[in-house]
Amino acid sequence: MNLYSIKDPSFLKQKNDEELKILAQDVREFLIQSCSRTGGHIGANLGVVELTIALHKHFDSPDDRLIFDVGHQAYIHKILTGRISEFETLRQYKGLCGFPKMRESDHDVWEAGHSSTSLSAAMGIAKARDIKGEGHHVVPVIGDGALTGGMALEALNHIGSDRTDMTIILNDNEMSIAPNVGAMHNMLGRMRTNTQYNRVKHDIEDFLNRLPQVGARLRDMADRIKDSMKYLVVDGVFFEELGIKYIGPVDGHDFEELSNAINISKDYKGPVVVHVITKKGKGYHPAEDDKLGKWHGLGPYKIDTGEVLGSKSTPSWSEFMSNTVLERAKKDERIVALTPAMPVGSKLTKFQNELPGRFFDVGIAEQHAVTMSGGLAASGMRPYLAIYSTFLQRGYDQLLHDVDRQNLNVFLGIDRSGLVGADGETHQGVFDISFISPLPNMTLMMPKDEVEAEQMIDFAFEHEGPVALRYPRGNIKGIEAPAPREPLEYGSWETVVEGDDLSIISFGPTLDLAIDAAVALKETGINAEVINARFIKPMDEEMLQSIGYAGRPVLTVEETMLNGGLGSMIAAFMADHGFKNGIRRIGIDNEYVEHGDVNKLLEDIGITTDNIILQSKTLMEWENEKEIKN
Amino acid sequence: MNLYSIKDPSFLKQKNDEELKILAQDVREFLIQSCSRTGGHIGANLGVVELTIALHKHFDSPDDRLIFDVGHQAYIHKILTGRISEFETLRQYKGLCGFPKMRESDHDVWEAGHSSTSLSAAMGIAKARDIKGEGHHVVPVIGDGALTGGMALEALNHIGSDRTDMTIILNDNEMSIAPNVGAMHNMLGRMRTNTQYNRVKHDIEDFLNRLPQVGARLRDMADRIKDSMKYLVVDGVFFEELGIKYIGPVDGHDFEELSNAINISKDYKGPVVVHVITKKGKGYHPAEDDKLGKWHGLGPYKIDTGEVLGSKSTPSWSEFMSNTVLERAKKDERIVALTPAMPVGSKLTKFQNELPGRFFDVGIAEQHAVTMSGGLAASGMRPYLAIYSTFLQRGYDQLLHDVDRQNLNVFLGIDRSGLVGADGETHQGVFDISFISPLPNMTLMMPKDEVEAEQMIDFAFEHEGPVALRYPRGNIKGIEAPAPREPLEYGSWETVVEGDDLSIISFGPTLDLAIDAAVALKETGINAEVINARFIKPMDEEMLQSIGYAGRPVLTVEETMLNGGLGSMIAAFMADHGFKNGIRRIGIDNEYVEHGDVNKLLEDIGITTDNIILQSKTLMEWENEKEIKN
Repeated sequence: MNLYSIKDPSFLKQKNDEELKILAQDVREFLIQSCSRTGGHIGANLGVVELTIALHKHFDSPDDRLIFDVGHQAYIHKILTGRISEFETLRQYKGLCGFPKMRESDHDVWEAGHSSTSLSAAMGIAKARDIKGEGHHVVPVIGDGALTGGMALEALNHIGSDRTDMTIILNDNEMSIAPNVGAMHNMLGRMRTNTQYNRVKHDIEDFLNRLPQVGARLRDMADRIKDSMKYLVVDGVFFEELGIKYIGPVDGHDFEELSNAINISKDYKGPVVVHVITKKGKGYHPAEDDKLGKWHGLGPYKIDTGEVLGSKSTPSWSEFMSNTVLERAKKDERIVALTPAMPVGSKLTKFQNELPGRFFDVGIAEQHAVTMSGGLAASGMRPYLAIYSTFLQRGYDQLLHDVDRQNLNVFLGIDRSGLVGADGETHQGVFDISFISPLPNMTLMMPKDEVEAEQMIDFAFEHEGPVALRYPRGNIKGIEAPAPREPLEYGSWETVVEGDDLSIISFGPTLDLAIDAAVALKETGINAEVINARFIKPMDEEMLQSIGYAGRPVLTVEETMLNGGLGSMIAAFMADHGFKNGIRRIGIDNEYVEHGDVNKLLEDIGITTDNIILQSKTLMEWENEKEIKN
Repeated sequence: MNLYSIKDPSFLKQKNDEELKILAQDVREFLIQSCSRTGGHIGANLGVVELTIALHKHFDSPDDRLIFDVGHQAYIHKILTGRISEFETLRQYKGLCGFPKMRESDHDVWEAGHSSTSLSAAMGIAKARDIKGEGHHVVPVIGDGALTGGMALEALNHIGSDRTDMTIILNDNEMSIAPNVGAMHNMLGRMRTNTQYNRVKHDIEDFLNRLPQVGARLRDMADRIKDSMKYLVVDGVFFEELGIKYIGPVDGHDFEELSNAINISKDYKGPVVVHVITKKGKGYHPAEDDKLGKWHGLGPYKIDTGEVLGSKSTPSWSEFMSNTVLERAKKDERIVALTPAMPVGSKLTKFQNELPGRFFDVGIAEQHAVTMSGGLAASGMRPYLAIYSTFLQRGYDQLLHDVDRQNLNVFLGIDRSGLVGADGETHQGVFDISFISPLPNMTLMMPKDEVEAEQMIDFAFEHEGPVALRYPRGNIKGIEAPAPREPLEYGSWETVVEGDDLSIISFGPTLDLAIDAAVALKETGINAEVINARFIKPMDEEMLQSIGYAGRPVLTVEETMLNGGLGSMIAAFMADHGFKNGIRRIGIDNEYVEHGDVNKLLEDIGITTDNIILQSKTLMEWENEKEIKN
């Protein structure tokens, strides 16, 4: 059929399984083609083509609420709800979001980008339904990986005890992003393969039914054994223990099996989990054969070979960080590495292969990852936890209460700090400075390049107390390290361009914009110094004092929230010390930054060389009109 | 025996069960006496007297690591490790901490105050042990309530799959703080009472052993049924499914049972959970009979009657907030209330009783509580989530990613904002302004008194978008509400004392200190205005502009971290607008605030009328020496 004619999913009601299969094939081909041009989470979506079609056939969205956990597997949902024509703009500036988005469609009833939120959201939505006396279905769709996230388990605990009516679709593709870890995973594996137990179950039931009905005790025993049948079958005992009816396992690429299971679940009163087995990348060999998670989320690719386009001249920051830490770990037995389900994203696979006994992938479990790092440090180890800035938000209390408060030697590598681009507002790493800076014991750094990063890594493994090193998405510069390097002095900034008229203070990738601006400003007669604020906390108070005494105006530039960012801290420092230098701050002003090309986003925000030049001039004008306001 | 002679727990090795019973009795009497004078978490500690003695007898602390979850039940541990003489100073300024504290003793290997961290810490400590080739035991002691916290489940998932050697003591007293909720609780209940299944188990085993050994299929079937025995017994199936050996249930007040179970667990290689049933408040009737959690943590009491001392002339802030919300809920069907395990602490029991269908106690599960509130709001409800400031840290990502980013109408009542006193550094509510202010859609308020709080509640239930209202520990003022009240204007501050020389800006309880200071300052000829910054976000920019144009110096006073606090935001605002008013900030400067009397703590920090006067004068002197620095 012509997929472009789809306005909403109602047409599915009339389709038989054969027609649905053809539709699934069309959708799959479209996705492979379309994502080859735009990039995207192709693997996850290819795995849920039949499942999404079946859900939209048997439930009535948006009246029934489909809630996609993580949300990157909602492409088919977007197609079936009339958004196929926007796929050319997928994850691009002002284009179709790679995740559910309420403003795109009424069918998107909940937004997510982080994992494990769907069950809690579903519980709220179901309770609202019950209070209002409505009768619609609530259908969270959650992956097996997401189920190991603590908040999903908190929600299961509540849903099971409350017996709230909902159909939980457990999309089990045996991997979250990388192959899954943990006891839950092993348990799901047993559930998957335990169909042979059904025969055993029937045999035992036969036996029990034939038991002579003599005496209360024996009858009682038989009844108890019948009650315990579920445990004999093993299937779903974990869920049944929590008070949630288990149906499955179901082949997630078979419309008949899906229909049957979904319809049973719809009739059931109370919470039910439908365990659906899917294959990530289904129908596209390069993605299907991927064992590592390379095809999780990626850029454009060549369809025939699966070759991912875009040349990489230098290693990524993740690769550089992880390999440098590995080098250090080979010389220092105290160093161990941890990741919450991101061994590939954080490029820790080499560490994992070379030092398997000192590497821990704890699954999607950021809270546990942070506090376990604390436990390792409390016993004298030097844990390195690589974690995306946006996911560190999940471990905030653990960072504060367990690591920072106890002043433990945990070294955080904060990956994807700053804007991340295509993944958009759920993934931008722009809050970490605001939430880390208030923690009393923390040291927070961001390097200008990989040479400085290496100095920082050495610093981190020697320092007493928690240290966080931010690094951006993207690649390192590929510069040569100068032979003898001075160890980094704690809390020291660096003047990278000299100048007397004003101080431009920045760190990380935006430092280069500041340098470019300073060069351009010199041509207009403004002598700007540029300072590399490589320590975000503690700040270089000596340097700030000297700027204060010199009365130089200050322009701060940071790819992060203004509120709680470095510029705010500098403004407060200057005020505390009675300095009245003019200060302007460039950064993100109280808004979420959507998806799109990072450079376009930076332009919108004003993190550009041009705007640094403009703001510098404004600042100088203020200085020249000194005291007009005071 | 003379408890005061105890230096370390080694003396326990020689004691037989009869002697231990006498010791337990002595410890219990001491605790009841001592806590009657100092207050404290008496209920929880009375429940674990025998358990703690048994652990210290059979394990070798500090070589073996005892890790107390939440930590408020470590009093007996403190007595057995030589700290009894300090109990007169329990939870007091510079006195014995109410939680484990590394600097007090080598036996305190991990600190906690928040729930559910012990298993992750234990995993880190156990892994460090294994990497270093050490052989000591790792023994987390976790309550049944804490087990519902998501991070504990994340850790179980990892421990079970990794088969890490440790003994998890599950201290099951059937209540966390209030009576426990959730499917896990129901499950533990079944485990507790399922000893009768043991007989069934033996019967079935007999039957299987008598099965004729004919044919591979039947033999295979018999073996499978044997493997599945654990499911028939029900006991511990949840843990066994996760790969963790289950021992129990064990009577936590019977030394013989405790010894047997602990010794089995010590010999077992791999993770084992010992399910210990204890009675909170054991041996002291008022605490033992408490069904609500009143005896969780409390002040001094009369031993004979259990009457808690200290008169309460006015209701607590928690009570006022919850009852006012209840009033509104009776008129507005969209309003529902949620708490993560704090129905008593947050005084929501009246709401629970009167509107049970619209009240949700989700257990110790802050993440779930926040996102479930989001789900309710996404379906048109007006959820009110009462949550302690310090515990909201646990739901930070959910607040950002689920609630604020989706701009949902969730109303947070942030209880225990500011210093809390005796519970100390793990419980001070001083970080919330720093981590909430950067969230783009959030409105954050703190009232000066209950009349203003009522206006804020009305505002919150009408406002579109997330709203947080901070309120302190302690009691309301008990003032009469003026009859007709103006609705609160969004983002508006209020001048409560007029003055031209400087502006003192504060909010919440510290506003009164500012007013007192202004009165005193007037006598010295300084005319200070005092501004009630009741909206912390958004700030009253019009008022700030007028202060800026007037050039009035600004002194900010807040019972919160300076970094990211209101003073920082004001300093940044002034800088952004080119104003060069002198600014000084009073608040907590990059340190954790320990336990003790709130007034003493405030004095140390400098949040006093005297210091406001002093800083005001300094600020005025700076202004009079204007431009010396610039």
